[in-house]
Amino acid sequence: MTICLDMMGGDFAPLEAVKGIRDYLTEAANPALLFLVGDEAQINPLLQEYKIPADKVKVIHAPQVIDYNESPTKALKEKQQSSIAVGFHLLATGKAGAFISAGNTGAMLVGAMYSIKPMEGVLRPTISTIIPKDNGNTGLLLDVGLNADCKPEHLNQFALLGSLYAKHILGIDNPRVALLNIGEEEGKGNLLAQGTYPLLKENDQINFTGNVEGRDVFLDKADVVVCDGFTGNVILKMAESIYEITHRKEIKHEYLDRFNFELYGGTPVLGVAKPVIIAHGISKAKAFVAMINLAEKMIATDLMGKMKASFESK
Amino acid sequence: MTICLDMMGGDFAPLEAVKGIRDYLTEAANPALLFLVGDEAQINPLLQEYKIPADKVKVIHAPQVIDYNESPTKALKEKQQSSIAVGFHLLATGKAGAFISAGNTGAMLVGAMYSIKPMEGVLRPTISTIIPKDNGNTGLLLDVGLNADCKPEHLNQFALLGSLYAKHILGIDNPRVALLNIGEEEGKGNLLAQGTYPLLKENDQINFTGNVEGRDVFLDKADVVVCDGFTGNVILKMAESIYEITHRKEIKHEYLDRFNFELYGGTPVLGVAKPVIIAHGISKAKAFVAMINLAEKMIATDLMGKMKASFESK
Repeated sequence: MTICLDMMGGDFAPLEAVKGIRDYLTEAANPALLFLVGDEAQINPLLQEYKIPADKVKVIHAPQVIDYNESPTKALKEKQQSSIAVGFHLLATGKAGAFISAGNTGAMLVGAMYSIKPMEGVLRPTISTIIPKDNGNTGLLLDVGLNADCKPEHLNQFALLGSLYAKHILGIDNPRVALLNIGEEEGKGNLLAQGTYPLLKENDQINFTGNVEGRDVFLDKADVVVCDGFTGNVILKMAESIYEITHRKEIKHEYLDRFNFELYGGTPVLGVAKPVIIAHGISKAKAFVAMINLAEKMIATDLMGKMKASFESK
Repeated sequence: MTICLDMMGGDFAPLEAVKGIRDYLTEAANPALLFLVGDEAQINPLLQEYKIPADKVKVIHAPQVIDYNESPTKALKEKQQSSIAVGFHLLATGKAGAFISAGNTGAMLVGAMYSIKPMEGVLRPTISTIIPKDNGNTGLLLDVGLNADCKPEHLNQFALLGSLYAKHILGIDNPRVALLNIGEEEGKGNLLAQGTYPLLKENDQINFTGNVEGRDVFLDKADVVVCDGFTGNVILKMAESIYEITHRKEIKHEYLDRFNFELYGGTPVLGVAKPVIIAHGISKAKAFVAMINLAEKMIATDLMGKMKASFESK
């Protein structure tokens, strides 16, 4: 198993990625081979300093970097030797089984869409977030920003993608799928929710349990909650801010600690043909460990194969 | 000044309303005359028990009650002797200056729209919520559920209504108005946000300061935040659940206490011609005091007159 990491992405590159690699290799019983893409002049000394075993990693030199404020499409086209472009090339050609980057989010999305491409039958790939439930369980919310405007058929696909992710990656058997709405009864909501409900109800590939409201997001009423990317993005950023505000005010509780989204690493792009994981720019070592583990699990469970099969059988 | 209260609305009617009236009359230097609408057989013994001075209140008998699960339009038409119908009649005919109820929300909205009616020029009346900011300040978010599907011109009107409310009721001078969005720059967002931004920018009746994101909702980046009623409702209910979850887990902090939405009483319907305040069904004494004070302030500042003037001058 081979996982490719962009060493140049994020606010603390490449140091925190190296620390994460050290921790991953220490913890993993049978670690994947890691391809480390980036400027070897910066990477190699750190690998030595942090005593990374040379047989567990392979540095792949990429002299260019796409900055976080560059135009994604233009940068990907012009900077073919950037760490993101090289990473996607390794993934697309099958030399790596997954690609992880904390770099320019837009470039990661463009790469996922155009160099990896959506699976056959998927209208819109999506990104999700883990939601910490009040009883200690973990749920999934999607879309969280990739698709600001959605149609009912998009949400219906997010439901299936999220359901498969919850089953195979989060280990939730027969995950309960709910529609985020502003009322509990069928027929409530905006036009999107009204149009989505019947599709989810008729979708025999998911375990649809009805509507949930904003008050239920942090409760264990559903394992997978679907919504448009505008609403989901607002929720995700509010949840992140709850951690930041309570942390700053020194309000301490293990439940609030679970709102530290760094714990969860990045978000995979669901619905594209191969595992692509986009990390937060502020990712530190712990986040990199979480993402490498996630990539490993996505490969080991053949999540993409299962998603493809589900969309083919429709 | 006369304020009309529905005594039969909410989960704890009429007891908690009576307790609230007692507290209001104890605290107010120059209290308004209160019209108490409902079943006099239930109300009168409580007024005696709680020693409410007879010259400060006037019981107006209404033998019918609209239950929380009745169809609003049908119930209002058929139950002309219900406390909500009678309350709206008193408000519409000018016998009361404001109407407050914790009863059937739908019936309150239907009454506000059809028996009081929107102000000239207002396309869609709206409801808002108070948002506790991390620095101790208070902001306003609207719409929070009355308008699940919105157009840019609706959000532009919510911005003006919210701005006037923030100025005259919350006492915020030249309130900063922001658009809830999923990115900071102009041009970001879903089609609604993209269409709304230029209208807000050109609106010279408000102090538009740009986009805010989900992470900013609880920060003091803007005084008034506008969004569609679907997103706003999800935010409001999430914020309510933060209080409930942290309270249940005994996570104590004065900042979290401010998420107890009972403190703020109900929400006025902004954009209708007269003060209508809709309370949460679980309202207790403290909420009733807050709502009576709010009604008083709406009358004393002539908020409705100021809103009308602003819409006429457009």
